[in-house]
Amino acid sequence: MNNLDTTTVVQIGLIVKDVEKTARHYAEVFGIPQPSVVPIADDSFARTNYRGQASTARGKAAFFDLGAVQMELIEPVGAPSTWEEFLRTKGEGLHHIAIKTMDMAEARKFLASKGMETIQHGGWDGGQYAYVDCSEQLGTILELLHNDK
Amino acid sequence: MNNLDTTTVVQIGLIVKDVEKTARHYAEVFGIPQPSVVPIADDSFARTNYRGQASTARGKAAFFDLGAVQMELIEPVGAPSTWEEFLRTKGEGLHHIAIKTMDMAEARKFLASKGMETIQHGGWDGGQYAYVDCSEQLGTILELLHNDK
Repeated sequence: MNNLDTTTVVQIGLIVKDVEKTARHYAEVFGIPQPSVVPIADDSFARTNYRGQASTARGKAAFFDLGAVQMELIEPVGAPSTWEEFLRTKGEGLHHIAIKTMDMAEARKFLASKGMETIQHGGWDGGQYAYVDCSEQLGTILELLHNDK
Repeated sequence: MNNLDTTTVVQIGLIVKDVEKTARHYAEVFGIPQPSVVPIADDSFARTNYRGQASTARGKAAFFDLGAVQMELIEPVGAPSTWEEFLRTKGEGLHHIAIKTMDMAEARKFLASKGMETIQHGGWDGGQYAYVDCSEQLGTILELLHNDK
């Protein structure tokens, strides 16, 4: 792999203190229905790993489709996680941009070869994610998303 | 106006220390050409206003189209500006999401009625922008973009 094989950002991740409250404001400002809040990493597929260690930290999320890009609101629950660390050190704000990858292992290996290391990874029923710390190179965290099908 | 009349995010703004360096990394990681760096607010159309006062602060920007959303890298030059304030208080990171509006005055008035105030505005040859502080409500700064044509 010589690059990420995609140039499409599919998601923007936003860390918030109170996902219900912020979702209500998004719905009001954009004139769209308020989505349900869903748990992140709350099942046997989660296998959350943060900086090399298993973690029981979770998140509460709400998703809005804003054009071709999805806005993901995440309220951290417990610790340690990149979500909790971001809220504690930077406050509420935009946490990551996400792309889809066909080959998670290759994409992580390519980024690691450029000094960009995975800080958190896990899965869900149907896919896996990895947050890669690209803050020195790309100014932000990059999330890799892989769907099994 | 009862809402923003759009649900499409067209741009993500990223504040960086060195726009040339970060643009080089984006080009390399995504496998795309490195764009030219362009000045923001460097002409007679700029009329930059920051927190109610005229400002001579500027920015150096580079733009990448990453799918349907544009990534705008901004290096602050001088002060005061929301770009310089963000870099100084939060460090490099994602600064705003942007939408297009047909009626800048109405959009600013609608957001102000919900407690979201414009912190910086200005223009270019062909349009205007406003950064609205929606950090309490939407967890981030929202940029309104208006093209004259």
